Amino acid sequence: MNKLLNSATTLVTDSLRGIDAAYPQVKVDAENRIVFSLAKRQGRVGVISGGGSGHEPMHGGFVGPGMLDAACIGEVFTSPTPDQILSAALKINTGAGVLFVVKNYTGDVLSFEMAAELAKSQGIQTATVVVGDEATSQAASTGPGRRGMGSTLIVDKIAGAAAARGLSLEEIRIIAQDVADSGRSMGVGLSSCSLPALGRPTFELPDGQMELGVGIHGEPGRHRVPLQSAIELSETIVRSITADAAFEGQHVIAMLSGLGGTPLMELYSMFAELHDRLTERNIYVARSLVGNYMTSLDMAGCSLTVVPVTAELLEFWDAPVNTPALRWKD
Amino acid sequence: MNKLLNSATTLVTDSLRGIDAAYPQVKVDAENRIVFSLAKRQGRVGVISGGGSGHEPMHGGFVGPGMLDAACIGEVFTSPTPDQILSAALKINTGAGVLFVVKNYTGDVLSFEMAAELAKSQGIQTATVVVGDEATSQAASTGPGRRGMGSTLIVDKIAGAAAARGLSLEEIRIIAQDVADSGRSMGVGLSSCSLPALGRPTFELPDGQMELGVGIHGEPGRHRVPLQSAIELSETIVRSITADAAFEGQHVIAMLSGLGGTPLMELYSMFAELHDRLTERNIYVARSLVGNYMTSLDMAGCSLTVVPVTAELLEFWDAPVNTPALRWKD
Repeated sequence: MNKLLNSATTLVTDSLRGIDAAYPQVKVDAENRIVFSLAKRQGRVGVISGGGSGHEPMHGGFVGPGMLDAACIGEVFTSPTPDQILSAALKINTGAGVLFVVKNYTGDVLSFEMAAELAKSQGIQTATVVVGDEATSQAASTGPGRRGMGSTLIVDKIAGAAAARGLSLEEIRIIAQDVADSGRSMGVGLSSCSLPALGRPTFELPDGQMELGVGIHGEPGRHRVPLQSAIELSETIVRSITADAAFEGQHVIAMLSGLGGTPLMELYSMFAELHDRLTERNIYVARSLVGNYMTSLDMAGCSLTVVPVTAELLEFWDAPVNTPALRWKD
Repeated sequence: MNKLLNSATTLVTDSLRGIDAAYPQVKVDAENRIVFSLAKRQGRVGVISGGGSGHEPMHGGFVGPGMLDAACIGEVFTSPTPDQILSAALKINTGAGVLFVVKNYTGDVLSFEMAAELAKSQGIQTATVVVGDEATSQAASTGPGRRGMGSTLIVDKIAGAAAARGLSLEEIRIIAQDVADSGRSMGVGLSSCSLPALGRPTFELPDGQMELGVGIHGEPGRHRVPLQSAIELSETIVRSITADAAFEGQHVIAMLSGLGGTPLMELYSMFAELHDRLTERNIYVARSLVGNYMTSLDMAGCSLTVVPVTAELLEFWDAPVNTPALRWKD
């Protein structure tokens, strides 16, 4: 698979250099692989997230005024280290404490837990929100539980807005964890992705087959089934999401994210069907995002995230944000 | 190639339904395949563009306050019809006239020319800007000339801002044509794309090979060469662009667009190199965009667009815009 890079070893640092060059609202600490915001934060809570590379614009693309204060960037599909996260906390903290937004993967959870201990020993108060919004996990009761997916972006935005409004660390944690717990996501893979260091697909997926329930790390999904039309697939996805959480009658934010290799034209087409399937169930799409927001390198496919929202949450969602990948009202 | 769609025949209309559902700032006229803005335009010039599908978010994603008033959407890689464009002009015109922004492809130019005639016969004043910003065309003196590429987006934004400020049709035409004439783009293909109706790659490109000078319609480029590293390729692209226009010492808008199938991580990495190559030549990147802005379905690769800007043009660029794919300050 042909790729735009110098080498797989330098791809993460090279891509951070690109973010630094392209976006005036963020800076990059190259040594610690931290993207951080130039927003004023004196006296308010800082919001930090992070995780492996390969999900761009997640996480570095969501740093900036009104959203994340910092993102800690790991190698491709690899958790950031506790030291990285501590460095970010030290950089961001102004005394009001720091919120960690963590996707529910064993490595991420461990790194942020250890970073919280380290931060505490340095006098920094932290709180943690764990996002595990996968709709289809049957492993919830045995393994590490539901995996963290697209609701992470919604949590980042709402926590960032709550922090900008001056809420306390505990107030923000409660709001953000509630958003994390009420959101549901489901992913569908139409191709494998290719790791830069590997240079070939991580699994084989024949034409006419698709993977239901893919996570975000380029792995196969929970079921391989024959490729469905957009109409059929929208029913499959929305049924799976609504089997798992009571969205009927609620207003929601709906995000359809491409996985990196699917063109926007197909995502628009897919969103039309998903919007219909939600509306048929009296689920009202109050805000929507369609595009590449949380990706798995160059995998073809999409994931739908649905998060119910109150009027207060919509206010946080609509509040100004100025990040590389999500921007409205400076 | 697995795709998210109902059928190749309905993909264009389905994707328009998705835009309609996802974005409150635009509406879709499904019969005429027009995406139009709900912005107030009483007494000011309307700005219309359009072209084939498959380049999303171009063109429908750039409709909204501060940018296009309408986009006319053709089938995949196929020009819109004069009737479609006339319908858009009739919908948009409030008496101040309508500017057509047209990419330099024979079909597009003909359709917009005929639409201008039709509009004139109905008493609508039009003016046309043709964008032909391809850097590498040796065919300029014989064939239809340089092809229209990424500068189209910059022209759309600046014309939209000039219209919002109340400039006259002729004033906007002069500014916009000047932007179109001074911009340069070059595209590089790392894979073929797959037409929805065809379901397989339109040409074969082996691993380790790349196409220099690709247009936007999924065709092979002007030269096939061995795959280059990001550093080497950035030099190839910037040399080609600067051989063709005097950018040294100037401030520019630089856009690195993915072609649809290349992940953002690679684009960031590539942008870091391009930014260095421009800076080394004393070309100052005043504003930048990195992402999927003008695509060729699921083709892997990228295109760089460089447009020199004055302080006045930067003001137009920075002016409020609220479209599906380009949004800042409502």
